[in-house]
Amino acid sequence: MPTPDDADPEVEARADVDAVMTPGRLEAFSDAVIAIAITIMVLELKIPDEATLDALRPLVPVFLSYVLSFVYLGIYWNNHHHLIKRTTEVTGGILWANLHLLFWLSLFPFATAWVGENDFATTPVIVYGVVLLCAAIAFFILQTVIVRHEGPDSPLARALGRDWKGKLSPTLYAAAIGLAFVNRWLAVAVYALVAVMWLVPDRRLERRFATG
Amino acid sequence: MPTPDDADPEVEARADVDAVMTPGRLEAFSDAVIAIAITIMVLELKIPDEATLDALRPLVPVFLSYVLSFVYLGIYWNNHHHLIKRTTEVTGGILWANLHLLFWLSLFPFATAWVGENDFATTPVIVYGVVLLCAAIAFFILQTVIVRHEGPDSPLARALGRDWKGKLSPTLYAAAIGLAFVNRWLAVAVYALVAVMWLVPDRRLERRFATG
Amino acid sequence: MPTPDDADPEVEARADVDAVMTPGRLEAFSDAVIAIAITIMVLELKIPDEATLDALRPLVPVFLSYVLSFVYLGIYWNNHHHLIKRTTEVTGGILWANLHLLFWLSLFPFATAWVGENDFATTPVIVYGVVLLCAAIAFFILQTVIVRHEGPDSPLARALGRDWKGKLSPTLYAAAIGLAFVNRWLAVAVYALVAVMWLVPDRRLERRFATG
Amino acid sequence: MPTPDDADPEVEARADVDAVMTPGRLEAFSDAVIAIAITIMVLELKIPDEATLDALRPLVPVFLSYVLSFVYLGIYWNNHHHLIKRTTEVTGGILWANLHLLFWLSLFPFATAWVGENDFATTPVIVYGVVLLCAAIAFFILQTVIVRHEGPDSPLARALGRDWKGKLSPTLYAAAIGLAFVNRWLAVAVYALVAVMWLVPDRRLERRFATG
Repeated sequence: MPTPDDADPEVEARADVDAVMTPGRLEAFSDAVIAIAITIMVLELKIPDEATLDALRPLVPVFLSYVLSFVYLGIYWNNHHHLIKRTTEVTGGILWANLHLLFWLSLFPFATAWVGENDFATTPVIVYGVVLLCAAIAFFILQTVIVRHEGPDSPLARALGRDWKGKLSPTLYAAAIGLAFVNRWLAVAVYALVAVMWLVPDRRLERRFATG
Repeated sequence: MPTPDDADPEVEARADVDAVMTPGRLEAFSDAVIAIAITIMVLELKIPDEATLDALRPLVPVFLSYVLSFVYLGIYWNNHHHLIKRTTEVTGGILWANLHLLFWLSLFPFATAWVGENDFATTPVIVYGVVLLCAAIAFFILQTVIVRHEGPDSPLARALGRDWKGKLSPTLYAAAIGLAFVNRWLAVAVYALVAVMWLVPDRRLERRFATG
Repeated sequence: MPTPDDADPEVEARADVDAVMTPGRLEAFSDAVIAIAITIMVLELKIPDEATLDALRPLVPVFLSYVLSFVYLGIYWNNHHHLIKRTTEVTGGILWANLHLLFWLSLFPFATAWVGENDFATTPVIVYGVVLLCAAIAFFILQTVIVRHEGPDSPLARALGRDWKGKLSPTLYAAAIGLAFVNRWLAVAVYALVAVMWLVPDRRLERRFATG
Repeated sequence: MPTPDDADPEVEARADVDAVMTPGRLEAFSDAVIAIAITIMVLELKIPDEATLDALRPLVPVFLSYVLSFVYLGIYWNNHHHLIKRTTEVTGGILWANLHLLFWLSLFPFATAWVGENDFATTPVIVYGVVLLCAAIAFFILQTVIVRHEGPDSPLARALGRDWKGKLSPTLYAAAIGLAFVNRWLAVAVYALVAVMWLVPDRRLERRFATG
């Protein structure tokens, strides 16, 4: 594995501004992981033993949780694309912040299946929220590491603006986890609400990327 | 996650004509999802417990439904490619119409396995038809959103022509679902017929794309 | 789905020489399917219930069949690459000949697991051979369709030469299937032998591609 | 399958310096296999039967082994990228050395699940170490084959330097396997330690690649 052992201290001081990979390479790998996660979730839709509509009924919550997670992974794919296309260099820190995000996204199939197979019971709903929260924090860390590298006047920093959705989302997930102890459906409603919030287009952002 | 909170109403009015992603990126992600869906279907071919030809016999319907779904996913991959290569811009609406299509395609492994494991029983055959119908409608929506964006005189709109196959297919799926209540094999025959209809090449279309 | 209904007969006559997709696109999709098939095979390596070396023992044949199939899929990936990089156009016929090959390659995980879980019993060994044979025939069909399209003086046709490996392989698979009725290990030996035959490099071919 | 049968002995002598594939193609395929391996590991996280936190408790070791393997596959993805981006030609030997590495990486989901489901019992911990060791040796072989092809004064050879991490890692895995017979947690600690060693950035290497 490629590594020199003769480190130059002077170089080390500015090494975190150095690229280790092209953004395109990082994005292709991330797209592959997200495409796999979004597709293998269907393997958790267990085939019913009987060939009746009744046998499908227990799958309804599994299906609903599948839809929710599919939408979330679609949102992450979209947001990740927006982030990386304004990224000019991938440092080691960015690479690992990105893998950290992929780690939490890879847990979606598990959390989704557990929620679905237990009719949105309280504990799985909380665990699902924790995965959502960790993924949102991981996205925020990735974004922060990239913005710090790109600089406050970079196109990315300007395109992000105040980033109210990015800041509101983890707050809402945390609130939803708390609400789940009162009523699990409140938590589920918040999860769905945040997804809808991301689905409503930020038209101005789209324009900026299009004209930028 | 990248989002400005200072929306410009004037911009919003024309924002739906703005690009959020290159068509190449959208196609690569869609290709990955289709490649995964087409390949993981084989995981539903449960390994027989015994090492005899008799033990393979219950797998015959599973195998046949696998072949049918493999061909269908191949057709969608091909048609999707034709559609996207004439797409010049990906708006937020196109992105989500595309994910909506991928959602229904991702259900092929489930519907295929249920049909196969129940010897093409009526209810699974109907559910399979519903998935086919929803995928066809999703493709039609995606195509409509793109054509509206590209304009009526765009190369895509002209290449599509009257699109009789695209309009006939959902009609036939709906008819097949109705026929399944009479005889499930009629429905299966229609599903196979529509696949054959798509397999027969539209030579003129190929020529247009090749010379265009 | 894109299809005009106003076909031009004059055009139809020469339509089969028209491209529907770039070779790069076809290869990327095929690579994805092969990468998935080669990787999900490991899901058939069932986790032993106990944490002892004895519990691993029943996995030995599964592991051996996994190694054999891994090598075969690697060979197909390599040969497919050689074929497509000399392909200048993808017609509808080439596209479907390619999907036909991918279909048989997608059955490798199933055949591999069945052979492995039954200690290379006769019937699974025969079925494995049938999958090998069908994949080899599918490759031959794909190659023939492409060569016919490229022409007898094309770089591909010249690079192929007499293609003795491509012709010998299906013959040997067929022979191995027959031999399995006598002794299943003879069949397995032939399968391994053909793989080794492909592993030994065709140095001249490599040179031609490198200098061509 | 493409093969000439008229080999030229003179050509054969220098044939091992010839390219069979572009490094980009090799890397895309490897990235796909690693992305699949890193994502399907989550399928080994079996969904608990009950919807309680207690039901999650047996998953804790599975989760920990998942984290460790996720990090390892991330390290291999990163190191593989560094290696291939300094590779100018892919010979048949490099192609098969690369597939050999992918083979061992594809066993990570199996080894991870077995370790996790048995609370890091001694035998699975040893087997996990064997997979780590074989992957490290496979990486070393791949690197050696490429360096031999690129030459001792190539940018790759210079970037590798003395490669102390690459040489130390297999030694530590072998030691850990021995230590597992004394105490399995010692082995696990060494596995984690080696991962941390790779995570700490080689800043000078990053700089070289960035400025090179």
